[in-house]
Amino acid sequence: MVSLVSEYANILQIGARNMQNYALLHAVGETKKPVLLKRGIMSTIEELLMAAEHILSHGNEQVMLCERGIRTFETYTRNTLDISAIPLLKQLCHLPVIVDPSHATGKWDLVEPVSRASVAAGADGLIIEVHPNPEEAASDGAQSLKPERFKALIQSLKPVAEAVGRTL
Amino acid sequence: MVSLVSEYANILQIGARNMQNYALLHAVGETKKPVLLKRGIMSTIEELLMAAEHILSHGNEQVMLCERGIRTFETYTRNTLDISAIPLLKQLCHLPVIVDPSHATGKWDLVEPVSRASVAAGADGLIIEVHPNPEEAASDGAQSLKPERFKALIQSLKPVAEAVGRTL
Amino acid sequence: MVSLVSEYANILQIGARNMQNYALLHAVGETKKPVLLKRGIMSTIEELLMAAEHILSHGNEQVMLCERGIRTFETYTRNTLDISAIPLLKQLCHLPVIVDPSHATGKWDLVEPVSRASVAAGADGLIIEVHPNPEEAASDGAQSLKPERFKALIQSLKPVAEAVGRTL
Amino acid sequence: MVSLVSEYANILQIGARNMQNYALLHAVGETKKPVLLKRGIMSTIEELLMAAEHILSHGNEQVMLCERGIRTFETYTRNTLDISAIPLLKQLCHLPVIVDPSHATGKWDLVEPVSRASVAAGADGLIIEVHPNPEEAASDGAQSLKPERFKALIQSLKPVAEAVGRTL
Repeated sequence: MVSLVSEYANILQIGARNMQNYALLHAVGETKKPVLLKRGIMSTIEELLMAAEHILSHGNEQVMLCERGIRTFETYTRNTLDISAIPLLKQLCHLPVIVDPSHATGKWDLVEPVSRASVAAGADGLIIEVHPNPEEAASDGAQSLKPERFKALIQSLKPVAEAVGRTL
Repeated sequence: MVSLVSEYANILQIGARNMQNYALLHAVGETKKPVLLKRGIMSTIEELLMAAEHILSHGNEQVMLCERGIRTFETYTRNTLDISAIPLLKQLCHLPVIVDPSHATGKWDLVEPVSRASVAAGADGLIIEVHPNPEEAASDGAQSLKPERFKALIQSLKPVAEAVGRTL
Repeated sequence: MVSLVSEYANILQIGARNMQNYALLHAVGETKKPVLLKRGIMSTIEELLMAAEHILSHGNEQVMLCERGIRTFETYTRNTLDISAIPLLKQLCHLPVIVDPSHATGKWDLVEPVSRASVAAGADGLIIEVHPNPEEAASDGAQSLKPERFKALIQSLKPVAEAVGRTL
Repeated sequence: MVSLVSEYANILQIGARNMQNYALLHAVGETKKPVLLKRGIMSTIEELLMAAEHILSHGNEQVMLCERGIRTFETYTRNTLDISAIPLLKQLCHLPVIVDPSHATGKWDLVEPVSRASVAAGADGLIIEVHPNPEEAASDGAQSLKPERFKALIQSLKPVAEAVGRTL
């Protein structure tokens, strides 16, 4: 299955619910494709690093770590983005750190400020959900940006990236 | 007691453990001093707003809300800074939002990136612990910056503040 | 204030939100009245023991610890009763351990099985909310038992208490 | 893989980390073997029921639900057993509810009182780790009972089971 997907996909994503599916981690570890490993909503930073190690130890060094929010008592947002995880992961390993503000917040109007915060904290990339018509999205509509807002977000991210010595 | 402190202090701070000490909230609500209300480590955003209301309803409109991290399962950091709380609080009320990255992270080397993230997310202010000799601090040494690092942090915050249309 | 209440009350209760209100802990520590100290919804077992120490160290040795549920991600119940806290607290100190299944669960139809569980785990006492007309209670109606159900609960607790060598 | 295991195993266990591994849930749903479905450490009761539905809807009605503790801020115990989940699950569905006090507490000396509590709360079964020499166990030694303590536990459970109208 993993080998079939690898023929067509540019990046293999391990979803949060499979972060500790070791058979899957080993299978993607044997491909040559970049892997985006999402932190489980219940997983500590240490467990995320251990999961990455399961991929790396099978020979695939192209692993990206993804912070996408953890489950806490706060229910106003879908999850709680662990902003400190970004600099911490960069201290603890050499892998790129990607942030998913859409899943972390669950609300489109929080995606913009949280994206800026993530870049300012040192994130190497962002995954942002965009939909031409969020009201009719099959899933995750409430957290999806319309294309024009996405464009505006990118504009607003440029000076933040530059402020921390990065380019967009 | 509150009236005595109010004679000398410029700002009255309600610590996280007293966020729901209603007698204290009412007492500071009757002063004319600005109040910094810290979110409890296990208080929801809604409860923080309710606590602020207890001060406001006693006549004191100078309330600042402070996000200082919530308690989660992650123990690598002292607490988990709820970065989404910054834009959320600014959507839900008109009060200034202050962030305390020192208590939220508990680690001096995370204070700098998390401060930048907070400013990028729209924070109106930061509280940062500084100590000339953190190793010998009576408390909170591990999260305190030396004066020279604090100075460097301020320098690095300026372009981030400007990137989001603020000045330092 | 504490001295006034102490003249009339048989037991002084420190509510969960005041578990770390040190001024209050010291004040009740100077009375001769039994104190029921409720664990904060955000507080660890270690912090509960520390809070008890603040009372004990002021001379009042009549302290009862109360487990009343902690805040977790689960929202089906009002809080999550930490059943292990009962035997743990009894291992760690000599103080009586009381359980409050009404606040822990927030649902009257869970109060009965959770009360039995608490007794089986070694609780020294229970606090149970009873109301003649729960639908019209000013607060906490959803977790209150009608008097006839309370009577039935007591009957069902007797054999459990005996099964663990206690009497009711 | 599932079909191979099914030839030899009496019961198929879905571990907590795989509670939302839908491909696996569907695969065991197509066998005729009883399935023990463990609740994820950060899964809600609703999510556990949904996971069970993924098995049931594939034709296998022999599903047992297992409460084994959830992840909270409390670190004295390995996890926090959600004792209310036992009566709640029995209200919400007809499936048997099994409790795993060994994983929930992580400490052998808490297994005994928590087992009694689980039975008193209405559990239909317990999974208890036993090891002849826990100090040398490859894993989970700290939470394993020696055979003689296990025997004593069973003796102490009998009267509790009878007190709630069950037999052992």
